[in-house]
Amino acid sequence: MTTRRNFIKNTAIGTVATLALPQIVTSVYAEEKSIKKIHLEKNDIILFQGDSITDWGRDHNKSFPNDTGSLGTGYVLLAAGQLLIQNPEKALQIYNKGISGNKVYQLAERWEADALAIKPNILSIHIGVNDFWHTLTNGYTGTIETYITDYHALINRTKKTLPDVKLVICEPFAVKGVKAVDDKWYPTFDLFRKAARDIAAEYKAAFVPYQSAFDKAVESAPGNYWTIDGVHPSIAGEALMAKTWMEVVN
Amino acid sequence: MTTRRNFIKNTAIGTVATLALPQIVTSVYAEEKSIKKIHLEKNDIILFQGDSITDWGRDHNKSFPNDTGSLGTGYVLLAAGQLLIQNPEKALQIYNKGISGNKVYQLAERWEADALAIKPNILSIHIGVNDFWHTLTNGYTGTIETYITDYHALINRTKKTLPDVKLVICEPFAVKGVKAVDDKWYPTFDLFRKAARDIAAEYKAAFVPYQSAFDKAVESAPGNYWTIDGVHPSIAGEALMAKTWMEVVN
Repeated sequence: MTTRRNFIKNTAIGTVATLALPQIVTSVYAEEKSIKKIHLEKNDIILFQGDSITDWGRDHNKSFPNDTGSLGTGYVLLAAGQLLIQNPEKALQIYNKGISGNKVYQLAERWEADALAIKPNILSIHIGVNDFWHTLTNGYTGTIETYITDYHALINRTKKTLPDVKLVICEPFAVKGVKAVDDKWYPTFDLFRKAARDIAAEYKAAFVPYQSAFDKAVESAPGNYWTIDGVHPSIAGEALMAKTWMEVVN
Repeated sequence: MTTRRNFIKNTAIGTVATLALPQIVTSVYAEEKSIKKIHLEKNDIILFQGDSITDWGRDHNKSFPNDTGSLGTGYVLLAAGQLLIQNPEKALQIYNKGISGNKVYQLAERWEADALAIKPNILSIHIGVNDFWHTLTNGYTGTIETYITDYHALINRTKKTLPDVKLVICEPFAVKGVKAVDDKWYPTFDLFRKAARDIAAEYKAAFVPYQSAFDKAVESAPGNYWTIDGVHPSIAGEALMAKTWMEVVN
């Protein structure tokens, strides 16, 4: 691993000064100690859950699988496109139930209808940035302990109803120095990232290291190329997320 | 080429009975006699023009490059994601000015503001399905000669104002047997496909063989996996279009 990382670093110093795909994603996973992968099966139902980054313009009145309006215009749409074209024989059904502003406890409030009832075989959860951010902006009083406790409860409840569900836990991320994300975020926000990683390990879930992906990406182009406000991805950032996600599901 | 095609065919007969990416796209271009490619340069402005397939939910009141609302939720968004993540150092600016229902003469009516004024370095045009379809449904009286004459005039005008523009001509396509597309389409619709191909060759434009891509794709999953109504792509079809387009621009 170290050799590979040094190779990539050395290359970056040469005439080609930047990383692009697939090198960004390769270098991200090269730094992971172990990578849990999920294999797609025929007729898999894949559910994306999360906050605004997942929601991203979807029509909340629609709930059709593999449907543009129902999936929004964010990383879920881009990942869905890749999943569907790479696996035409698998008849995958892909749903998005992200809702803007959500924190873990708000996922829990709607979990029966918006997760368990869909009976996903693969459940991807991307939650945590609001659990921290809203303490700065909205007077939210939850702490890192709230996040950890609520997240455990949510997964235990999921496992009870759907014992065979394959979990994908996505790392909350922020791009420092872009609009909303300033020094006040640190070091506390890093605790939320670590908690998501720990939960993934604990439940043997696949883990998507989004923070690493954005950290690598900003070596190639400025932060505002990848994110609109430090929290929400640009189209480039969405594509980066989709590609990073796809590395653990195939 | 023949050897490669036979290899792909033989593989398809084996235990894996279907093609998926990247084999679909590889097999499409393996059948092309010659492939003109366009190389991206730093600061390139890329404009996508066309009809509803290009338009696909974009906000007509917005015209920002690399912006979700401005780009819609179709193949343009998916291609933009790939372009931006594969070329972070190039500072590409990507625009979408497709409008639903357009035929070539309607592109011409708005060409000054919606194409020439944007001064694209790379101009991708996907037009032609309505030039035929509306003769069946809307009482449109244009013919294949109208399409050819109007398309030539549009490109000549473009070349006059933007002599160095790199052109991408996309093949109009239809998926036979799905909803809107029945026997009445043939053989006349095939003339529009051929005309687009001929125009690409005449102007040394890159050509994107979308019909071949969909023809290959329906060997892997039913037509309604790839298109909603025979004319408009599903998310899988959008992803197929984006990937097929990306093969000639890199």
